[in-house]
Amino acid sequence: MSRPSALDACASSVLGPTDQFVHRHIGPSDEDVADMLREIGCESLDDLLHKVIPDSIRMAGELDLPCPAGEHETIERLRAIAEKNVINRSYIGMGYVGTITPPVIARNVLENPGWYTQYTPYQAEIAQGRLEALLNFQTMISDLTGMEIAGASLLDEATAAAEAMAMCVAIHRGKRTAFIVDTGCHPQTIAVMRTRAGSMGFDLIETDAMDAEITDTIAGVLVQLPTTDGRLVHYESLAERAHGAGALVVCAADLLALAMIEAPGSWGADIVVGSAQRFGVPMGFGGPHAGYLATSSTHVRKMPGRIVGVSHDAQGNTAYRLTIQTREQHIKRDRATSNICTAQALLAIMAGMYAVYHGPKGLRAIAERTNALTRALAVGLQRLGHSIGDDPFFDTLRVRVAGDAAKVLVKAAALGINLRDFGDGSLGITLDETVTTEDVQDILKTFGADVEMDIDALLSDWKGGALPAEFERTTEYLTHPVFNSYHSETEMLRYLKQLENKDLSLAHSMIPLGSCTMKLNATSEMLPVTWPKFANLHPFAPKEQTRGSRELCRLLEAQLAEITGLPAVSLQPNSGAQGEYAGLLVIRSYLNMQGQGHRNVCLIPVSSHGTNPASAIIAGMKVVAVRSNERGEIDVAHLREMAEMHKDDLAALMVTYPSTHGVFEAPIREICDIVHEFGGQVYMDGANMNAQVGVCRPGEIGADVCHLNLHKTFCIPHGGGGPGVGPIAVAEHLAPFLPGHPVTNPGSAGASAIGPVSAAPEGSAGILPISWVYIAMMGAAGLKRASQVAILNANYMARRLGEYYDLVYTGNDDRVAHEFILDCRPFEKSAGIRVDDLAKRLMDYGFHAPTMSWPVAGTLMVEPTESESKAELDRFCDAMISIRQEIAEIERGDADREINVLKGSPHTVEVVGSDTWDRPYSRQRAAWPARWLHTRKFWPAVGRIDNPYGDRNLMCSCPCVDDLAE
Amino acid sequence: MSRPSALDACASSVLGPTDQFVHRHIGPSDEDVADMLREIGCESLDDLLHKVIPDSIRMAGELDLPCPAGEHETIERLRAIAEKNVINRSYIGMGYVGTITPPVIARNVLENPGWYTQYTPYQAEIAQGRLEALLNFQTMISDLTGMEIAGASLLDEATAAAEAMAMCVAIHRGKRTAFIVDTGCHPQTIAVMRTRAGSMGFDLIETDAMDAEITDTIAGVLVQLPTTDGRLVHYESLAERAHGAGALVVCAADLLALAMIEAPGSWGADIVVGSAQRFGVPMGFGGPHAGYLATSSTHVRKMPGRIVGVSHDAQGNTAYRLTIQTREQHIKRDRATSNICTAQALLAIMAGMYAVYHGPKGLRAIAERTNALTRALAVGLQRLGHSIGDDPFFDTLRVRVAGDAAKVLVKAAALGINLRDFGDGSLGITLDETVTTEDVQDILKTFGADVEMDIDALLSDWKGGALPAEFERTTEYLTHPVFNSYHSETEMLRYLKQLENKDLSLAHSMIPLGSCTMKLNATSEMLPVTWPKFANLHPFAPKEQTRGSRELCRLLEAQLAEITGLPAVSLQPNSGAQGEYAGLLVIRSYLNMQGQGHRNVCLIPVSSHGTNPASAIIAGMKVVAVRSNERGEIDVAHLREMAEMHKDDLAALMVTYPSTHGVFEAPIREICDIVHEFGGQVYMDGANMNAQVGVCRPGEIGADVCHLNLHKTFCIPHGGGGPGVGPIAVAEHLAPFLPGHPVTNPGSAGASAIGPVSAAPEGSAGILPISWVYIAMMGAAGLKRASQVAILNANYMARRLGEYYDLVYTGNDDRVAHEFILDCRPFEKSAGIRVDDLAKRLMDYGFHAPTMSWPVAGTLMVEPTESESKAELDRFCDAMISIRQEIAEIERGDADREINVLKGSPHTVEVVGSDTWDRPYSRQRAAWPARWLHTRKFWPAVGRIDNPYGDRNLMCSCPCVDDLAE
Repeated sequence: MSRPSALDACASSVLGPTDQFVHRHIGPSDEDVADMLREIGCESLDDLLHKVIPDSIRMAGELDLPCPAGEHETIERLRAIAEKNVINRSYIGMGYVGTITPPVIARNVLENPGWYTQYTPYQAEIAQGRLEALLNFQTMISDLTGMEIAGASLLDEATAAAEAMAMCVAIHRGKRTAFIVDTGCHPQTIAVMRTRAGSMGFDLIETDAMDAEITDTIAGVLVQLPTTDGRLVHYESLAERAHGAGALVVCAADLLALAMIEAPGSWGADIVVGSAQRFGVPMGFGGPHAGYLATSSTHVRKMPGRIVGVSHDAQGNTAYRLTIQTREQHIKRDRATSNICTAQALLAIMAGMYAVYHGPKGLRAIAERTNALTRALAVGLQRLGHSIGDDPFFDTLRVRVAGDAAKVLVKAAALGINLRDFGDGSLGITLDETVTTEDVQDILKTFGADVEMDIDALLSDWKGGALPAEFERTTEYLTHPVFNSYHSETEMLRYLKQLENKDLSLAHSMIPLGSCTMKLNATSEMLPVTWPKFANLHPFAPKEQTRGSRELCRLLEAQLAEITGLPAVSLQPNSGAQGEYAGLLVIRSYLNMQGQGHRNVCLIPVSSHGTNPASAIIAGMKVVAVRSNERGEIDVAHLREMAEMHKDDLAALMVTYPSTHGVFEAPIREICDIVHEFGGQVYMDGANMNAQVGVCRPGEIGADVCHLNLHKTFCIPHGGGGPGVGPIAVAEHLAPFLPGHPVTNPGSAGASAIGPVSAAPEGSAGILPISWVYIAMMGAAGLKRASQVAILNANYMARRLGEYYDLVYTGNDDRVAHEFILDCRPFEKSAGIRVDDLAKRLMDYGFHAPTMSWPVAGTLMVEPTESESKAELDRFCDAMISIRQEIAEIERGDADREINVLKGSPHTVEVVGSDTWDRPYSRQRAAWPARWLHTRKFWPAVGRIDNPYGDRNLMCSCPCVDDLAE
Repeated sequence: MSRPSALDACASSVLGPTDQFVHRHIGPSDEDVADMLREIGCESLDDLLHKVIPDSIRMAGELDLPCPAGEHETIERLRAIAEKNVINRSYIGMGYVGTITPPVIARNVLENPGWYTQYTPYQAEIAQGRLEALLNFQTMISDLTGMEIAGASLLDEATAAAEAMAMCVAIHRGKRTAFIVDTGCHPQTIAVMRTRAGSMGFDLIETDAMDAEITDTIAGVLVQLPTTDGRLVHYESLAERAHGAGALVVCAADLLALAMIEAPGSWGADIVVGSAQRFGVPMGFGGPHAGYLATSSTHVRKMPGRIVGVSHDAQGNTAYRLTIQTREQHIKRDRATSNICTAQALLAIMAGMYAVYHGPKGLRAIAERTNALTRALAVGLQRLGHSIGDDPFFDTLRVRVAGDAAKVLVKAAALGINLRDFGDGSLGITLDETVTTEDVQDILKTFGADVEMDIDALLSDWKGGALPAEFERTTEYLTHPVFNSYHSETEMLRYLKQLENKDLSLAHSMIPLGSCTMKLNATSEMLPVTWPKFANLHPFAPKEQTRGSRELCRLLEAQLAEITGLPAVSLQPNSGAQGEYAGLLVIRSYLNMQGQGHRNVCLIPVSSHGTNPASAIIAGMKVVAVRSNERGEIDVAHLREMAEMHKDDLAALMVTYPSTHGVFEAPIREICDIVHEFGGQVYMDGANMNAQVGVCRPGEIGADVCHLNLHKTFCIPHGGGGPGVGPIAVAEHLAPFLPGHPVTNPGSAGASAIGPVSAAPEGSAGILPISWVYIAMMGAAGLKRASQVAILNANYMARRLGEYYDLVYTGNDDRVAHEFILDCRPFEKSAGIRVDDLAKRLMDYGFHAPTMSWPVAGTLMVEPTESESKAELDRFCDAMISIRQEIAEIERGDADREINVLKGSPHTVEVVGSDTWDRPYSRQRAAWPARWLHTRKFWPAVGRIDNPYGDRNLMCSCPCVDDLAE
């Protein structure tokens, strides 16, 4: 690989591909760039960089990555990589099974930018579609688990279990810190809990829970249903014992099993966790899927993650929104018990829609068929002389092979079948909805059947009922009309479309969210996600079958290492906060290895993301705050003071760069040096990496660890609130400590590796192709140009809007980095207008509000990204300027302080078209305050939502139809 | 294969797949079916059939097709078939070349039900999105060809050429009937013209046009640019000669070439035709793609096919609609000069969007690169000793091989390369935008290069300019802003979304178009269309590479043969009207072979589709009308009279069954017998086949030929106005006469085969998987149930609406078939309300109007199809009943006859939200007349469109921005 010096150098040949991606990804044309540079008084993009980025950290050369590649050739190259995967029939189980994504859901949700480019539904009035979809998910989980309340999804089953453990301790106010995990749980679940218990100082007891003594130090017990080897265990007696001892019971439950097995809520589980993968979400070599957590309403304020709730709008209509949000965006910093700040929204939506499409009867039919096939298989295996034990089962058998298990495995491989090898002469088989009777015949062949066995006949030889009576489900589920109306594809399609059309996404207009980087999620990047070769791979498939996906992971790691200037990368963390957590654990392990295990102080600037202190707490660190100066930058003197004060215990500094205030702080090298001087490591939060790529590198600036938000900088879409992906890149000395995995990498090279932080070895591997394709198509030159244009776009907007609003912070030469903060605080006094009035009014102009009241209350933080065209930037600026004039009218007294276009916003079409109109402004001004709205108007589905009402009257499942009719 | 007796028999096993499709396709649930049967007084679906369908024709047994199959297993089965195709790099050319569909267009148009489930834009107020998209296509064609006006697409290049020939004759009012076609045209173009000239009695002269004498019998001359073997010929002198002799000049032109070659309009072409395939539409083994035809405005009324034009709406806003529609839906029956009544809308939209995305600079860059690669290749080939002649070229070379051409072909095959074999020692190579320099190196290898040649170096050895000066394009093109604004993917996505959201499709609500069968187009059916193995196959690829697609064609033919009861099928006709034409030609050839070549009278009931007489005329027949009786049925006595009167010349009867009036006419067997008695053949128009499948069979009723509309009955989506597919099934004695093809089947078995009617041997092969998947997933039992429920749905609605509207016709037991006609004529007198007032008012209720004024003026013909749920049927009925009450208000004098909710409809959101409201009804009644509209309102993009204005002021390309601003 050569070091190309510029975009032009790469694209010089007339014979290169014409489907170059760089100008598709970057919004402004060359002419626009020239205009904008002129506007902001810069001679060139390089000149702008010189003015914005301190000389001391600007990269000297270029990234050592290839030239930009054509879209078509990149896709073909990736296809060749994908072809190296072998998709066997997988009966490995362990929480990952085959599933049929209903094609109508695959095409119209997973492959539809109208859904996947949505942001997190903080602006609920323009997010009613996915809020309803997530409420369906919550209702489904509540119903199937028999619990009162469920959240809008967690990252995966293993982290959900770890969260439940922390929740149990928190419910006991930290007075009980021991926790029992049953050995019947999946190994990766136990391993992730072990990591978490270790960092939080819990005592994790791995044992047979049914026999374990439950003392008064035990906060809770986790059991699994069915167990990892398939047994159905009745936990009612355990629950009674636990409750008697004041402990809580957590149950990890398989959702499909719950369609025919009695709900854990019925026998006393306090928390139920699990994965919704098998409800239509492909395995994807490990993720992403929606984890879930459900509990009783008593514990709602201890629940991690997001919860959708029901409230009403200004006109009294039912309206959905995120409820009791204090637990998240405004996360409790150093009082946190969880650092969860995303969800797996897109996957939760798919799983919820799977239930909507199948309905209760359909789900039960799938469960019963899966179970029937398993019973037939059991009869057949026994007839062949194998033993399957006496425990009742749902879909999984542990077969003690009569004879040589290794031979069975060889036969299985020959037939393209994967089984679970317990390593003790027993083999695991987990069936699923994709399995046919022919498949069962093939399984029986691998176990020695030399003639075809009649599966129907085997089934009729089964003695007794499908399940022992005590497991049979008697409680109803999915009785709400939403699960009983959309069973034809036509009805389902229309339901999906109705919801989609309520939500503003990148398919409509820019979503200029500071720190959230809503850039283009290009189709070429998204295409491979649903290729069967990537989508249908089990994370624990034999290594020789996963060559393609592993090659892709290694290629992506190399790209990210080059971009960060840090040589080793782990892709395992499946969210940004998970990345923070993993990075801090790596630091702790390193220090420990150095005999510095006592170092546990983490310096965190007050301007940091709320997840930073939360992650530090979860990682078992002590948070010490570092002040900002009046320019919003780290107070270097105070930093030195704190570092020195804690020099004996200093473990790390967490620093976001460029800062959360949108500035490249000049003394960043000095800051890193101070930390190193006092024995600490520098953790760089990569949230704002979009301004750094190809321009400067964390590793060169002084970072020892840096996480990257692939769902921001590297084009993985936000999916309406997840999935996120948060790999970490580390310096050489930290490489040995990167996370391991108990299944694919048991006690490997990494004797020093920290335990896993996610269930799957490569995290959300299924969506990693997105970032690889992006980087490949952009090349070194394109990536650099993207950063430059992101900074240009921000400075252009800052220049235009700076004439009407105060910028809260600027850096060198009065310029900003890739985002900037508009001060809206003065309007409260001058016009009685709060920042959320501006945010809601923006909806009338067809825009999603910028990040609101973060990092500074009463402000809006704008990040345009490089993907927005000048025309779109201008349109947004025009809207903001127009709103400023609307505020000025109030200030002048020309409009009322209480009843005006801002306070009355957002204006729904029903309000605008109502027969009576008693507002002091006109309908035209309400709904069409700008010219472009006549050709591209987006209508908010509901009016201003009453948040306090929803928090006071908590309701987190689908409202009954009578309520809606009110 | 056994003959299953019912759906239940197939689905009995608990172990069968749970993703059964039948209940996804069919809207009403079993409970709904029971309710509806009760409502209409039937005991069962079979009972309903007994009452609706004459005993004499009802099928005794069941179709000999397999049981319904699961979606997943069907897709996997098809994937195995697709894998039998080999996708080589194709340099065959001949009008089909590789192209890169921009992924943003593939995903958001071709794979998006919001686009592909749209109907033809007859109801223009709710079709502004695709009308704009089609106007883009027209503008692109006009610009590139240098002509004043272009239509909204034709079927393919060959049929466009045949249409142009017929147009030239028509322009000469039939006084000149000879036509010269240059031998430099594609062989399939010449062959299709030969078929057409033969049937219409034209004298087609195949010769070197540059040398040909142009006498005063010559209507026109067709030349091709570049010629089929790649030569660029300057036709200006020919044009002068032709015009001097009073003949017209038609030019078949390659659109990409026109991006750098001067437009045919500049040197005097009168008509330009061609294909837009290479503008982003995959080859798909032959189609569908958009053919085009452009001409001067003088000839507009002689143009075949649809044309989009600009007009304004009731509020004065610019609005698009189909212009001078007299040429189509109200086709000129037996005065027709064309039977075209569809377009390739979806493909034309894609091609237009390709131009929008690339813009003029991008298109020119693609053209120049393709040409540059060809020049480099030319230099390389010459260096290797081969001869390429002295003619200028664009992208195609005809290589006279130095040595053995066969050896080159063997080497090419080994390298996975397809070349064109002229069979005379010369080979053709056509390059395209997918070709890379590595590909050119491989081509050079096949021609003997044993070392890698440096392509850049070869190019720089090219002497002279890219093109001889006389070919260089100097006229501008694509200067309109729409081709210069959406070049980033983000902007393009938003533009596509904006247009999509203006159009009502099946993704919103039912489109109950009588005779047009807007049923579900399921995702599983659509998925294979974009599989590379189907999409990227050249129609003339060697047979060993096309095994998969050909197997699929044969399987589909077998399914259709079983369904029609007619043993032989041709898939070639790429529209329903083409099927009619082909079927009639088959009959004529058969009669001819029987020594009955003089038989040329075609009996056609007055109630027939307008295309029937048009097709008969094109097929060279004489149309004799048969009257209807007062019940709308064929007057059998009159039929006998006419048959007897023309007994010496009787060739055929064309009959639609069930009738276009929505009735199973009892004497259908007698009707067929009469025709046979007098020596004629029975052509059954399969437009209404949706009521027959699995219930009765054309072959058993007495039909000798039947065409099928795959885009209606067999689930190919309407695509907003095409593609259509119209295979024909024929009786044994007609099988030898099915269409042949000059390239893949030259002078084959079928010495008796009629000539081709479409450019590609299997017609629109790329979308045939849709119908195969549908039939496979439905199985015999599902197909029958679909017909039954289609009839049930129609009867249920007829029952409900019959209480408020008069049904124009009913059949046995006062029941209807799968559709019915509501009489709206009385309202003109009673309330001054015309049928189009009802149609427009339906938009306010969120519905597309039923078929309007056809087959009876002043009526609405409703066809619900089996895919609509009872809830949706009820919603539509509620809307119609509510409108009836609105009419009653006028009748009672409670509402004004001139200013009322119907006359004022459709109501746009701008009207409803306007500051002034001077209508005598409220805004609420205008826009939300039904309760459901509060949750699912669809807003028409414009108000009532002024059609006469648009016809008087013809404007058929994108309006300039100033016009829009007015």
